[in-house]
Amino acid sequence: MAVLCTPAVAVPEHVITVEETLDLARRVHADHPQLPLVLRLISNTGVRERHLIRPIEDTLEHPGFEVRNRIYEEQAKQRVPAVVREALDSAELGPEDIDLIVYVSCTGFMMPSLTAWLINSMGFRMSTRQLPIAQLGCAAGGAAINRAHDFCTAYPDANALIVSCEFCSLCYQPTDDDIGSLLSNGLFGDAVAAAVVRGHGGTGVRLERNASSMIPETEDWISYAVKATGFHFQLDKRVPKTMEPLAPALRALAEDHRWDVAGLDFYVIHAGGPRILDDLTKFLGVPSEAFRHSRATLAQYGNIASAVVLDALRRIIEEGRLESGARGMIAGFGPGITAEMSVGTWVPHDVLLHGEHSTTSAPGGNR
Amino acid sequence: MAVLCTPAVAVPEHVITVEETLDLARRVHADHPQLPLVLRLISNTGVRERHLIRPIEDTLEHPGFEVRNRIYEEQAKQRVPAVVREALDSAELGPEDIDLIVYVSCTGFMMPSLTAWLINSMGFRMSTRQLPIAQLGCAAGGAAINRAHDFCTAYPDANALIVSCEFCSLCYQPTDDDIGSLLSNGLFGDAVAAAVVRGHGGTGVRLERNASSMIPETEDWISYAVKATGFHFQLDKRVPKTMEPLAPALRALAEDHRWDVAGLDFYVIHAGGPRILDDLTKFLGVPSEAFRHSRATLAQYGNIASAVVLDALRRIIEEGRLESGARGMIAGFGPGITAEMSVGTWVPHDVLLHGEHSTTSAPGGNR
Repeated sequence: MAVLCTPAVAVPEHVITVEETLDLARRVHADHPQLPLVLRLISNTGVRERHLIRPIEDTLEHPGFEVRNRIYEEQAKQRVPAVVREALDSAELGPEDIDLIVYVSCTGFMMPSLTAWLINSMGFRMSTRQLPIAQLGCAAGGAAINRAHDFCTAYPDANALIVSCEFCSLCYQPTDDDIGSLLSNGLFGDAVAAAVVRGHGGTGVRLERNASSMIPETEDWISYAVKATGFHFQLDKRVPKTMEPLAPALRALAEDHRWDVAGLDFYVIHAGGPRILDDLTKFLGVPSEAFRHSRATLAQYGNIASAVVLDALRRIIEEGRLESGARGMIAGFGPGITAEMSVGTWVPHDVLLHGEHSTTSAPGGNR
Repeated sequence: MAVLCTPAVAVPEHVITVEETLDLARRVHADHPQLPLVLRLISNTGVRERHLIRPIEDTLEHPGFEVRNRIYEEQAKQRVPAVVREALDSAELGPEDIDLIVYVSCTGFMMPSLTAWLINSMGFRMSTRQLPIAQLGCAAGGAAINRAHDFCTAYPDANALIVSCEFCSLCYQPTDDDIGSLLSNGLFGDAVAAAVVRGHGGTGVRLERNASSMIPETEDWISYAVKATGFHFQLDKRVPKTMEPLAPALRALAEDHRWDVAGLDFYVIHAGGPRILDDLTKFLGVPSEAFRHSRATLAQYGNIASAVVLDALRRIIEEGRLESGARGMIAGFGPGITAEMSVGTWVPHDVLLHGEHSTTSAPGGNR
């Protein structure tokens, strides 16, 4: 059974508080007719501070899409290896044990993706499969976990590394001043994260079932306008209300597993914004504190896109209250509108060491 | 066992012959100091004609990255559904039977990817998994087959749809006049393709083993420079010689399967260029005519990126000489430098109908 081991997460050193964000909005958009609404929306995000790869004065400049992509590459190469090493250490594996790298990032574009550089520079085998995903946005964290789970189901002796690299500040577009954009400017933060899914062994969440669900006819609600100036994030005002149509999919996944979605022991939920978390507790019938780890991610880091679910899981594990057999759900949400969900059970180290074995062989090409 | 059913391929209606390409190069680059070399390289590609989504006069203009991405989206929505329907028909499945859509395309960028639109407009289930891949370039055709294979290995009752949408003409960059770019301007063509991988049943190639292999320290050899003007394809002159280091990986995959790579019944090889095909026959010890279908793709369509392997397989199947049990290899090559390879066996319809059954259940969320 595939086990999602403890994620490693790192946020950059440049901090911007919500007060600084509000001051900035007042200064930069002093003449905006809906400034009071924007300030109220940002205040209500629940974000207390965010971490950025560069000082705010640099962040506010737009040096062009080419330069931004160059910064993306430089910063990714600086910041990703440390979380990868930490995730490998947590999983008690080395780079040579990894069969698949799922690299998710929607805030910079490279071809080849960073996977080729990681393989060359960190000692991964040349036969490591590369699965870069750039187009699932915030849902890509859940998708990465699910595709790694599928891979380890197909090849039970295999291990997959998930890497999430999100520098949302590189998608800041000074010319976009609609409400959705101004809110986003106060919501998103930068982070890198990594986690290993082990085919067997390891301490973590045993991934038992996953599913995807899309809300019909909402493909325009979260999207990029792709322009000469780069990716322009477009957020429809209906997005915060999407938990009502998505909650049944989460409930159904739990029921398929013969679990009651309201009675699980832990929830790893994408912290897209405060309304998403509030609504989902309501529609699933869970107490608000069940999502405290997602709220902590949102408060301390902002919405860090595909990295949220990895950070929320890290916080749950670090809290240290998970008992063997604890049942949980992971759910990422993003463009489509798509939910990528999974259910699993917490398994401490000794259970796995003695309770599991595998009779199937590693995937071909493990050389 | 996963079966890759007959691919559907469509090329656009605007045709440019090699003579027209050479005339264009002479006209547009009359003063280029290395024009004779460029003309010789283009003549030697083996490309006789290519098919473009728009007339050549429109293709040569650069209306900006934003407009190009809009054209990409419009053209994809016009052209992809027909090949998807044909691929589903060949697999004797409907859209409601598909559990995963792997969408590969490196020549336009959308978020969400076309998967969301396809699900909304073609009757796929809202629980269909979406796997868009934009960063594997020409290797993405092989990668799509391999990830679909993995998925159907994990969930033997599942079916995956592969879609390849490559409008290489939208990456034409008038300002790039290095040799690699001018050669590429005469090499790449546009096409859309689709194929279904069935978890069981179906006529096609039973996918039995797959592998990936990267050549160390070659990540800069095939790459995009991502600029305000879009994706600038960068081709190193050492790329045509990469079959010598990759051939051992193809041989090893066959050996892992206890097959002799030189003695297979069919080869579905990415037609990146003539040297790649020539060298690979040499290094694998196979006769030149073994790659005739890849050569036909190159001659009639040009290098259609991730769609090449699907088109070459279509040609092999249409030739009608495959006998039950015929053993073959599929290999895509692209940035990394990466090879995505698989081996499998031709299984006609009746063998599968009566020779296969599955005892495992469909993936969760099939509602």
